[in-house]
Amino acid sequence: MYSHKLLKPDGRKLKLYSRYPITSQLEAPSPSNEPVQANPHLRWHPLRGEWVAYASHRQGRTFMPPPEYNPLAPTTNPDFPTELPQGKYDVAVFDNRFPSLIPTANNPPDTIVETLPANGACEVVVFTQDARATLSSLELEHLDLLLEVWGDRTRELGLNPQIQYVLPFENKGVEVGVTLHHPHGQIYAYPFIPPVPARMLSMQQEYYEKHHRGLLQDLIQKEIADNQRIIYEDEYAIAFVPVCARYPYEVWIAPKEPVSNFMGLTPEQRWGLAKALKTVTLKYDGLWNRPFPYLMAWFGAPTDGLAHPEAHLHAEFFPPYRTSERLKYLAGTELAAGMFANDALPEEKAKELQAVMVNIEEPISA
Amino acid sequence: MYSHKLLKPDGRKLKLYSRYPITSQLEAPSPSNEPVQANPHLRWHPLRGEWVAYASHRQGRTFMPPPEYNPLAPTTNPDFPTELPQGKYDVAVFDNRFPSLIPTANNPPDTIVETLPANGACEVVVFTQDARATLSSLELEHLDLLLEVWGDRTRELGLNPQIQYVLPFENKGVEVGVTLHHPHGQIYAYPFIPPVPARMLSMQQEYYEKHHRGLLQDLIQKEIADNQRIIYEDEYAIAFVPVCARYPYEVWIAPKEPVSNFMGLTPEQRWGLAKALKTVTLKYDGLWNRPFPYLMAWFGAPTDGLAHPEAHLHAEFFPPYRTSERLKYLAGTELAAGMFANDALPEEKAKELQAVMVNIEEPISA
Repeated sequence: MYSHKLLKPDGRKLKLYSRYPITSQLEAPSPSNEPVQANPHLRWHPLRGEWVAYASHRQGRTFMPPPEYNPLAPTTNPDFPTELPQGKYDVAVFDNRFPSLIPTANNPPDTIVETLPANGACEVVVFTQDARATLSSLELEHLDLLLEVWGDRTRELGLNPQIQYVLPFENKGVEVGVTLHHPHGQIYAYPFIPPVPARMLSMQQEYYEKHHRGLLQDLIQKEIADNQRIIYEDEYAIAFVPVCARYPYEVWIAPKEPVSNFMGLTPEQRWGLAKALKTVTLKYDGLWNRPFPYLMAWFGAPTDGLAHPEAHLHAEFFPPYRTSERLKYLAGTELAAGMFANDALPEEKAKELQAVMVNIEEPISA
Repeated sequence: MYSHKLLKPDGRKLKLYSRYPITSQLEAPSPSNEPVQANPHLRWHPLRGEWVAYASHRQGRTFMPPPEYNPLAPTTNPDFPTELPQGKYDVAVFDNRFPSLIPTANNPPDTIVETLPANGACEVVVFTQDARATLSSLELEHLDLLLEVWGDRTRELGLNPQIQYVLPFENKGVEVGVTLHHPHGQIYAYPFIPPVPARMLSMQQEYYEKHHRGLLQDLIQKEIADNQRIIYEDEYAIAFVPVCARYPYEVWIAPKEPVSNFMGLTPEQRWGLAKALKTVTLKYDGLWNRPFPYLMAWFGAPTDGLAHPEAHLHAEFFPPYRTSERLKYLAGTELAAGMFANDALPEEKAKELQAVMVNIEEPISA
């Protein structure tokens, strides 16, 4: 993997990735040359025992681009610079213009609860230069590169001793609030282990200490033996609707053997995950013959400098639909109590996805 | 408070409430006479360490009501029975036809994770017979009755030794997925203390053991001293945008002194909460001069038979809007990591709500 670092005129960082060498003639554009003014802070929520991030952005929004303007497409019109230069590269990562966490946050306000600077990072990951692509339409080589990029981001962000946890995710579809359809994801790098990964790690640690094996490793073995909810399987990777799915079309992707983070993947495991990722997203899009919205997040080990043999890298997809016509709204029991009520059995939803035939080797036109 | 219990032809329970005696001549209708077939079960989510409820409902939906049909309005056309009889009463509570938890669940399936019958209860609380009312338009006496009804439900459901926690909530508005606009809420009664209340109780318990005072009690005192985010205050009750709001327009309502559940409220405290509830909902509706959607949930002590001096009854409102035009979608950091990112400061949103003038004594026409 080749990469090339650039600095935007507003001070934000840009890093380009490719399987081929990247020319150093590129200049990093930015939709605005004004430095990002963000200075987010954290407040402690004493009743839930968790941090909340506050970021108020008040930049003068004088920038009025044409309606077809796509800030994630490579810049072609110098009057309306985008986030990305023209040139040969496959994946691009840059600092979010509207970050909830930044490396240089300082002087949090005094409040009646504990506050901290919201030190961390928020990055945008542009999956491809092709505005009409989706993860399902990218070639396996491209997905394999993306998995390696997520590893590079985890490693590089994790070098910052402030950063304890790196979460790559993708929000996809208007149904989950996405207005920018150029294929992209985000990375949040936190100065603490956030509540959900913290809970998962503690459950995994407890299991590991008791059984000297991984919790997810053993669950995967049981899923394979049960053979009811598997969506994809090869020697190295697996995708399945988990027996305990909270969302009707929830799917998890993981290496079969426990690997604590992206950097620990062998090339074979990464290739297996690329195939699983392509299979799942193709099946999603094929289910109702239309783009399928979801939130996808990758959970690995913290970047806290400690060994995490309990951690097992995996992705979880949370799709908002419960049928082709009906959204699953998170309401009282999910948001206020934290108990999910799923009106579909994981076995049934897995059958629907199993029935969608896909060919991951065939190039797809967007 | 008067109440009257009835049994629906399909076996579900109905209870009517009023400040005046209720005639015993009423008969409980039901949109369908077929017994509810639900037999929900729970599966253990080993990675998150929480229960997930599964309920698949497969009743033949031959029932085709006219478009103006409102199943929560008192029955007027015998050809299309609703959930409620005609007659004089103010609040009605009945078993949900599509429950995720029922008292008689049994024989959960064998899966590769632990399963349990989803024993508990799901109730619908019809706030008034007036289909066009909202909590903001109801008279204080009516809200006071509703608070007492929530107490009666908590007490009665809590008598079932299976039930450990009772959560009354209201989902309001199409934005949160509500299609039925007759003013109503729901109650979930759980066979365990769900994750969110469990976390809150554990934070409160830790604080109580250390300080011999309530966590929320002290936070309220600090909110009063800080005097920046208060929306309503009288001698007994308070409403405020919490310093650690996760949603831009989040508001909490609580008695000032710690009371662990609805049943422990004095009449003065309950009246104060009614006034706070009316003030907050009127201000919400007045903010943009249109109905304001929200999720409202009431958190009290578990019904596990133990003393809970740490628990402090309070309501939390989670509104989905962040500005008049923009929804706050829960995405990667909120749903996958569990860290909320709020792009508004609680102090600013509190000012917006403080500026909305309301008169809670004046009758409002729907």
